[in-house]
This record gives sequence, C-alpha cells and structure tokens, in this order.
Amino acid sequence: MERHVTLAHGNGGRFMRELIETVFAQRLGSGLDTQLDAAPLDLPPGAAVITTDAFTVQPLEFPGGDIGSLAVNGTVNDLAVSGATPLYLTLNAIIEEGLETALLERVVASLAQAAREAGVRVVAGDTKVVPRGQGGGLYLATTGVGVRAAACRLGFSEIRPGDAVLVSGPVGDHGIAVMLAREQFELSGSIVSDCAPVTQLTAPLAKLAGLRFMRDPTRGGLATVAHDIASAAQMCVRLQETQIPVRPGVRAVCKMLGYDPYYLACEGRVVAVAAPEAADEVLRLWRRAGAEAARIGRVVPGRASVVLETEIGGERFLEELEDDPLPRIC
Amino acid sequence: MERHVTLAHGNGGRFMRELIETVFAQRLGSGLDTQLDAAPLDLPPGAAVITTDAFTVQPLEFPGGDIGSLAVNGTVNDLAVSGATPLYLTLNAIIEEGLETALLERVVASLAQAAREAGVRVVAGDTKVVPRGQGGGLYLATTGVGVRAAACRLGFSEIRPGDAVLVSGPVGDHGIAVMLAREQFELSGSIVSDCAPVTQLTAPLAKLAGLRFMRDPTRGGLATVAHDIASAAQMCVRLQETQIPVRPGVRAVCKMLGYDPYYLACEGRVVAVAAPEAADEVLRLWRRAGAEAARIGRVVPGRASVVLETEIGGERFLEELEDDPLPRIC
Repeated sequence: MERHVTLAHGNGGRFMRELIETVFAQRLGSGLDTQLDAAPLDLPPGAAVITTDAFTVQPLEFPGGDIGSLAVNGTVNDLAVSGATPLYLTLNAIIEEGLETALLERVVASLAQAAREAGVRVVAGDTKVVPRGQGGGLYLATTGVGVRAAACRLGFSEIRPGDAVLVSGPVGDHGIAVMLAREQFELSGSIVSDCAPVTQLTAPLAKLAGLRFMRDPTRGGLATVAHDIASAAQMCVRLQETQIPVRPGVRAVCKMLGYDPYYLACEGRVVAVAAPEAADEVLRLWRRAGAEAARIGRVVPGRASVVLETEIGGERFLEELEDDPLPRIC
Repeated sequence: MERHVTLAHGNGGRFMRELIETVFAQRLGSGLDTQLDAAPLDLPPGAAVITTDAFTVQPLEFPGGDIGSLAVNGTVNDLAVSGATPLYLTLNAIIEEGLETALLERVVASLAQAAREAGVRVVAGDTKVVPRGQGGGLYLATTGVGVRAAACRLGFSEIRPGDAVLVSGPVGDHGIAVMLAREQFELSGSIVSDCAPVTQLTAPLAKLAGLRFMRDPTRGGLATVAHDIASAAQMCVRLQETQIPVRPGVRAVCKMLGYDPYYLACEGRVVAVAAPEAADEVLRLWRRAGAEAARIGRVVPGRASVVLETEIGGERFLEELEDDPLPRIC
C-alpha cells in the first residue's frame, strides 16, 4: 500500500479493490463479503429497527477514542437506547486524498475492535475518495440494525408527570477531551472521552416496568436531551445541579473557558426517564454495571422548558442550544 | 431559513432542528419521524438484505438527475440487482458551510421524488455541517434495506461456462452527462444521465430459472462488472463490440476525448448473466419494460479476463481499471 490515499483508491478499479481488501476487509473480518451488492441480514424474532449517523469529528484521534470507535458506538448507542440489541452495521468512508494510510489503518482497526466489543458485525460498506481540500481527512457514516422485543414501549409518549430523570455517568467528558485534543492544550491527557457502547447499561433494563424513555446525550449534551423531553412531552424538566455528575477536570476546563458542561457531548452515557417507583431500580442496575449513575431531576407539569435548580438555591433556564460551543465533536 | 447553510445548522440545537424540519422532514413525508433514535422496520416475509453507498458527485446537479436522485437510485439498484424488493432507506447528509439553501432544497425534493418512484421510504437520517473548504458542497450516504425470496439464488457462484451476458440498455450515459455538466462543454444537454431505479427491470426476473447474476454497472462501468464476473467465476468474459449498445452522442464524445465507453458509469442499467436458454426470456422481459436491452457476450472457460471482440474482427483485452478517466461521477 502507498503511504497516502490517492484519488485512484476511490475509482472502482484495482487500487480501490486493494485498499478495501487490505485496509477494510481484513480488519473487519469474515462478516464483510466485498463481492456482494447487498448483504443478508439474519434477524432473530422481534421488531427490527434502523438508525444512521455521520461522523466528522476533528481531530480524527483523541484521548479515549477516534472517529472509528465513535462511528461504531454512536450508532450502536442509538439502537441500544431504543431498547434494541444492536446486530449489524454498514460503513461509509469518505476519505480525503492525501490521508495517511497508517492513520486510516489505525482508525479501521479501532472501528473493528469497537464493533467486536459492541457485538455488531459490519456487513456492508462503501469507500469514496474526494480531492484534497474537499474533505476533512476522513468522514464516516454508519447505519445500524437491531432487534427489540415486539412489546417494547419506550418513547416520549410514555413520559408522565412526576417521572424521574437519571443519567448513567458524568457528563461532558467526550466534548472536553476532543476540544483539548484539538487545541493541543497542555491539559490534554487528564480528560478522556467516555466513548463506549451503552449496551451493558440498556440491556439490563430491557424488561423493567416503569422505564419510559432513554437517549444518549451526544451532540448538544444533557441540556438538549432535556429539551427534547420537555418539548415532546410538553412538560417542564427540572434538573438539580448538585446531583448532575461532572468530573472535576471537566468542571475546571468549563470554568476556565466559559463552557456549560450540560451542553457538552457524551458518547457513552444514557439519560433515562423512569416512573418514580422504577428509578431506584434503574440506578441499582446501572451501578451494578459499574456506572456512576445518578438521579438528576424530574418531569413536572408546566411550560415545556428545562430549569436548572442551582447549587445556591436559585433557578436558571437551560435554553435550547443555538450556536454550538464546540462544533465537530462527533 | 437563511440563504446559505451555516455551521450552526449542524450543531444539534434549534437551527439544526429547523433545517431538518423545513428542508428534510417536510419533503421526505410522513415516513420520517425526526424524534426517534431508531426507526422501526416493518419487514414482510423473506430474507432481508442491506446495502450502503456514499455519493460525492460533482456537479451536484446534472442533466437527468442530481446527487439526490443518484443517492436513492444507486442504493435502490444495489438491492434490486440482489433480487430484493427495496423497502427502506436511511440518509446521511454532510453539508459544507455556505451551501445555498435553495440548492439543498432542490436536491432533497428530487431525492424524495426518486424515493417515491422507487417505492422506498426514508425512515432515518442524520445531518452534519462541515466548515467551508472541508467538503464538496454536499455529500450524501444512503443505506437501503430490502427483502427477497428466501429461495433466491443469485451470485457469482451460480455462473456456468456458456452463460450469456446481457445489458439492459446503452452504456456510459451517466458518466458522459456528468462530465459534460462539469466541464460546461457546449455539447451538454444532448446527453442525459440514465439515473433511474432498475426495479422495473429486476422485478420481472424474480422467478426466472436460469438467471445467474445481476449487477448495475456504476463506477468503473461495464468493463469493471465484466472483470468482477471473470475474477469471481475464474472464467473469461467475451464481449462483442458490435452488440454493446452505446448512444451515438456518447460514442462521439468518447472518440473526441479518448474515453472508452465500457469503463463509464451507468446509473440505471443492469448487466445480467443468464443460462443460454434463459437469455432470450431476459431480453423479452426487459424489452417489454421499455429497455433497449441486448445480449452482448458470453462467459467461457479460460483465464480470468475480459476480451472484447472488435468490430473489425480483432480482439482486445479490457484490462482492470487502474486510474479513473472520470472521477466523482457518483
């Protein structure tokens, strides 16, 4: 293989076949048959669901992950919070001419490892190479298929006044880790992305009565998920600042640079809404899975809005995000 | 809506929600629930298959289509040539900051129209905005799910010596149409992309005994599909130049600019391999569907290679494509 990807690697001919065989197919294993136009999906009984996500993170590698592991976990987690078992992935790679082959190989190896950890098989893929100056090194898009119990009822419409809001762990790690990697601050290294599959958190809740809704707080963070809940349920989400876990390092960087951790992306957390009587069980199951989970608020009747009850006993509205403080973190 | 897409349209907040609601969700219709993390797939009996493709065509609009219709038909056609009925699509849009909103709206409208024509529903999507100078205006990736008869047996392994090779219509239209649009030659307008769903060509063949293999000759064209056949079946594909349909306009441009039409992309054609006794029936069914179909060659024992029997009675090898004469046509 050449040291850098060239336009010829994307033209459907011999170079492209070599790139796909040496970089992608070998690492992604026997699940990927590069000769097929369409790959068979062997689906167990239940209701199939599908989700898709594109990834344009900069830099491509950061403490705790890279665009490859992110592309797996981001899509796997959308399936998991829908109550499904993730099974299959497809992968699109849009490579910018000149990308270092070694970097591409590291990313694909990491992607393959993340897929193994999450229990999903990459069954189809496509590669395009775009000219220098028309890409960001590497963009990935993944589509995931999973299956959930036909009786699974999770969704905004299940949310009731008085329900508890929970989070599976500290928020903002991913956003700050990527930002520090990008800016090459001296601080980097101390904060690591939480990029991981959440299947170990969602699977134990599969049959829990009283679980209403789950979502992974990625782009836009916890505050954006809270807004989605408030807006869809037409209720007020009240969060208690003292209960929301934020790592000291993340809090320190936020203070220094003026970020609000509640708007920063996580890539391995779950926000759940549960009936009050089920909330403790969610916490217990999550903590048993090793998560630093917390009950952080509740859904109450009132105008669709998100209110933060502050440490000093005040209140502030968490407004809907308008301009991203940290773009391109996923 | 603003006249141009900004980075804030990709940050997970209010602007992004507005972009998705006004540009995507309205046109894509009721199939797309933007509130879901994962969309349900209601699959009829049979074997499910999945395929994925990314699209980086330049220019974004060309005679006969645009990146939107291409993104639908390219993925729909991969399902169709696998013997499946295309049912569902997911859509990723990677938008470059500064893209004209009106252009994006035209492309999404065209995409929605192509999806309706092909009988598929767009059920999930994701939008990213990348900074100016790190994209090509708009890149799309689509993933398709379809269902085929559990007994469907199509594939390289079915090909036998003596089988006929057929094509459903003239080759090279798409490649030349896009090239002319890009170069803004005076010739443009006379040649139109063949971009279309091939479901009307593949569906009638669903139960045809003796049909071995189908593929749509996109990137790399007819010659590349012939190579795939030769290489997978370890046989020689012999094509007869006089039988391969090429429109006079395409032939003229190829002659003038030194292109070989057999390597140029089609986006609405099917190459089929069929048992000799089934070949006439394939032609009859395709012609009944309005296609200018032709029997263009056969698969014979011999070294894995592609031989063109020329008009003047000679022979030339069609080598595997190494460097694309026309990059970024899909």
